[in-house]
Amino acid sequence: MAGCCNFSHLFRTKPGEPRPMWKKLSERIAYKGWRQIKVKQFELPDGKIAEFDILSSRSFVTVAAFTTGGELILIRQYRPGPERELLSFCEGAIDPGETPVQSAHRELLEETGYATEELIFLKKRYSAYTDQEQFFFLALNCRYQQAPEPDAGEFLSVELSPESHFRAMLRDADNDLFNNIDAAYLALDFISGRTTPPSKP
Amino acid sequence: MAGCCNFSHLFRTKPGEPRPMWKKLSERIAYKGWRQIKVKQFELPDGKIAEFDILSSRSFVTVAAFTTGGELILIRQYRPGPERELLSFCEGAIDPGETPVQSAHRELLEETGYATEELIFLKKRYSAYTDQEQFFFLALNCRYQQAPEPDAGEFLSVELSPESHFRAMLRDADNDLFNNIDAAYLALDFISGRTTPPSKP
Repeated sequence: MAGCCNFSHLFRTKPGEPRPMWKKLSERIAYKGWRQIKVKQFELPDGKIAEFDILSSRSFVTVAAFTTGGELILIRQYRPGPERELLSFCEGAIDPGETPVQSAHRELLEETGYATEELIFLKKRYSAYTDQEQFFFLALNCRYQQAPEPDAGEFLSVELSPESHFRAMLRDADNDLFNNIDAAYLALDFISGRTTPPSKP
Repeated sequence: MAGCCNFSHLFRTKPGEPRPMWKKLSERIAYKGWRQIKVKQFELPDGKIAEFDILSSRSFVTVAAFTTGGELILIRQYRPGPERELLSFCEGAIDPGETPVQSAHRELLEETGYATEELIFLKKRYSAYTDQEQFFFLALNCRYQQAPEPDAGEFLSVELSPESHFRAMLRDADNDLFNNIDAAYLALDFISGRTTPPSKP
């Protein structure tokens, strides 16, 4: 990135010099349940050997969806991780053979019953200790098509929220109900015309 | 949230009615390495029994930090999950006995060498299948104090970025280098004065 300055004492390189490398030595599945842990072994830049537990799962899509009336389509679900209810956008794993775009359309219809002809790719996100890619989409002018058909074990409540309420919730530091903060801001930023036009995912 | 409408056919409840409950039956550690998987068993709202793999780790802080000159303090690191380099804010686990605020100050100093007297809590975030809480902070007017002292196995490169470059990177759909999208937008929104004043974490 232009305009950055490196603290070379940390990485033992000066700007422009080749960066010290991590070398992957091996990987193995250490746990395989509903989720999977992969242990990856690396030779670090200082020559030491280290192992890392990586959460290994299918990549997934997150869809910030708006109705033709400009309301946000939200999902309320009890979540077993924090053992509390959260609000989120429609979200789901990309099936084998599916493109992220196809997955976004399918998850939107399955979880909310809505469909769109205006699906916009917003960004891709990586996380340090998982091998999942998260694809953010914006779905505009969604129309209600059919009753949602969530997967077995999914107990969803679909809620529509006016944009002004949604923005207020997002910006309220004391509100920790909604968890797709990144997708929400990317979507609102795009709608406000402040985002660089995206290419394909 | 006010202004929302429920699709009662999905949750089999009408607005105002008590919501169907998940009942936790048990939990056990199924994997314990550098990370930990906890299997939680629930009785679902339809009476069926289901198990969920939950990634169980210490909660953590993410610190969007600005220098006295208004530049963002970023960290460049190779990440073993995606096996590529990512840019992020200073981030780290909350040590036992530490408050999120203490953790934010400590991680900022350890990873970047900067310190601040203006640390602002922005928001808390939960995730569906982990039991970690993520605390977002904004650190303003950070001053360089000392050489960073990252943990063993951490190979950091600290980079300063002007806010305009940072905003452009955040809004570029083709740029997937930076992963703390949520923290970045919350911080920029706060700086722009659009956020509801926060209380304590």
